[in-house]
Amino acid sequence: MNNKNSTENPDIITAAILVIGDEILSGRTKDANINYIACHLTEIGIRLTEVRVIGDDGDTIIASLNQLRADYDYVFTTGGIGPTHDDITAPSVAKAFSVPLVIDERALDMMKVRYRDDQLTEARRRMARIPEGAELIENQISFAPGFMIENVIVMAGVPAIMHVMLDAVTPKLRVGKKMYSVTIVYEHPESTIAKDLETLQKQFPEVSMGSYPYFKDGTLGTQLVLRSTNKTQLNSAKSALVIRLNNT
Amino acid sequence: MNNKNSTENPDIITAAILVIGDEILSGRTKDANINYIACHLTEIGIRLTEVRVIGDDGDTIIASLNQLRADYDYVFTTGGIGPTHDDITAPSVAKAFSVPLVIDERALDMMKVRYRDDQLTEARRRMARIPEGAELIENQISFAPGFMIENVIVMAGVPAIMHVMLDAVTPKLRVGKKMYSVTIVYEHPESTIAKDLETLQKQFPEVSMGSYPYFKDGTLGTQLVLRSTNKTQLNSAKSALVIRLNNT
Repeated sequence: MNNKNSTENPDIITAAILVIGDEILSGRTKDANINYIACHLTEIGIRLTEVRVIGDDGDTIIASLNQLRADYDYVFTTGGIGPTHDDITAPSVAKAFSVPLVIDERALDMMKVRYRDDQLTEARRRMARIPEGAELIENQISFAPGFMIENVIVMAGVPAIMHVMLDAVTPKLRVGKKMYSVTIVYEHPESTIAKDLETLQKQFPEVSMGSYPYFKDGTLGTQLVLRSTNKTQLNSAKSALVIRLNNT
Repeated sequence: MNNKNSTENPDIITAAILVIGDEILSGRTKDANINYIACHLTEIGIRLTEVRVIGDDGDTIIASLNQLRADYDYVFTTGGIGPTHDDITAPSVAKAFSVPLVIDERALDMMKVRYRDDQLTEARRRMARIPEGAELIENQISFAPGFMIENVIVMAGVPAIMHVMLDAVTPKLRVGKKMYSVTIVYEHPESTIAKDLETLQKQFPEVSMGSYPYFKDGTLGTQLVLRSTNKTQLNSAKSALVIRLNNT
C-alpha cells in the first residue's frame, strides 16, 4: 500500500477530503470543492490520497473522521457547519475528539462584525459552537468561522466561503516535496502506446506515468501524464517519451 | 448509523461509488462521473450512501472494495480498466474476490467487432481480462466491456463510455422505493428559517429536510430541499413550509 502519512517519509505529506452532505449523494448538488482542494494541495506540496463523500449522519461522520485522521497527515472536511438542524459537523467532530462543544467567544466576536447583538439569534449562535481547543479559521464572507483541531480542518461547503477558509489555513500547514507534472496529448487510443509506456515506466521508477483516455468527436485519444518530485528525472522521462511517440 | 443495505429494510437499496484514479486526486482531471451516477441512482430508486476516490494502487483498491461491497447492496467503480500498465482495476477486483483473472473469450468476441485479429495487440487483449465468473457489460463505444461480479459493477472512467455501461447494467439491478424531492429557493440566509425548519422536521419525521446555503451576487440565500419516499407526506410538508416562509 502507498505510504499514508509522513511518519514513513517526511517528504510526503498526505491528506484526505471528507465531503459531508446528503445533497451531493442524491445528485441534487454537484460537488465543486473536491477538484478545487485537490489542485490547491498539489500546488502547495500536499498529496491528496483519498476522498470520501458521506451523508449528514453523526455516527458516519465520527467513524469516517476517526479513520481518516489516523491514516493521513491532514483531513479537510467541507459542509455541515451552518445554522440549521441538519448541520451536524461541529458536534460530530467534537465527539470524534471526545472534547466538549462550546459557544466560542472568539467566534461570536467574529460574527459581531456582521450581526448586531439582537441579530445573533439562537440559530446563528449555533455557528459559534466550536470543539474545545480548536483554532478558528477566518471567514471574510459570512463571518461564521471554520476551525482546525489537531490535523482536522473543518470548512464550509459553500465554495466561495470554503476558498477563503482554505487560503486562511494554508500558512499553518506542513508541506512536503512538490509534485511536478507534464501532460502530453497523444491523438491515438492508449492501446497503441501501452507497451512503450510500460517499458519507460520501468526505466524511470521515480516518475509516475499515467495514461488517460478521452473520447472526443467520435475518436479516442490519450493524455499522457508524467509526475515526479524530481524535476531532472521528469524532464528526461518526457524527452524519452516524446522520442517514442514520434517513432510510433 | 443509517442502515447500510437492504438486509435491514428491503425498501432501501444502497450503493457506493469507488472512483479509481490518481488524476482525480492530483486535481488534473475534474471528476464528471459521481454526479451523473448519483442522479441516475436516485432516479431509479437506489440510494447512494458513500463515495470514495482512491489512487491507482492495488492494495488500496482491494481494501476499499472489500469494505464497500460488504457494507452496501451495490458498488459501482469507475476507472482503471484500459490497456495500460496503470490500469489495475480488473486484476485488483479479481484479487478482492479471490478468483482468477482470465482472458475472456466473450470479451474478445465483443472487441472483434472493432478490431481485426492482427489489431488485437497484447495491450488491447489486456482489456479482455475479466475476473472469472463475472457478467460482461456491453460498451457500444469502444467495445472493451465492463463487468459485474456479485454486487460490484466495474465501469470505464471515460464519461461517454461509463454512461452506456450504466445504461446496460441498469436492468439487472434491484431497486427500492423511489425518493421524491422538492426544492424551494428562499432568498435569505438559512439562519432566518433554521428554527422553523427544525420544528417542521419534528412534525414530519418521514420527510428529510435539508437546507443548502448559496452565495450569489454578494448575497447569501438558501435552497430548502424536502425528500421522502412518501409523496403524500412530502406534499403536506411542502405546504406547511411554504406557509411558514410566507409568514417569516
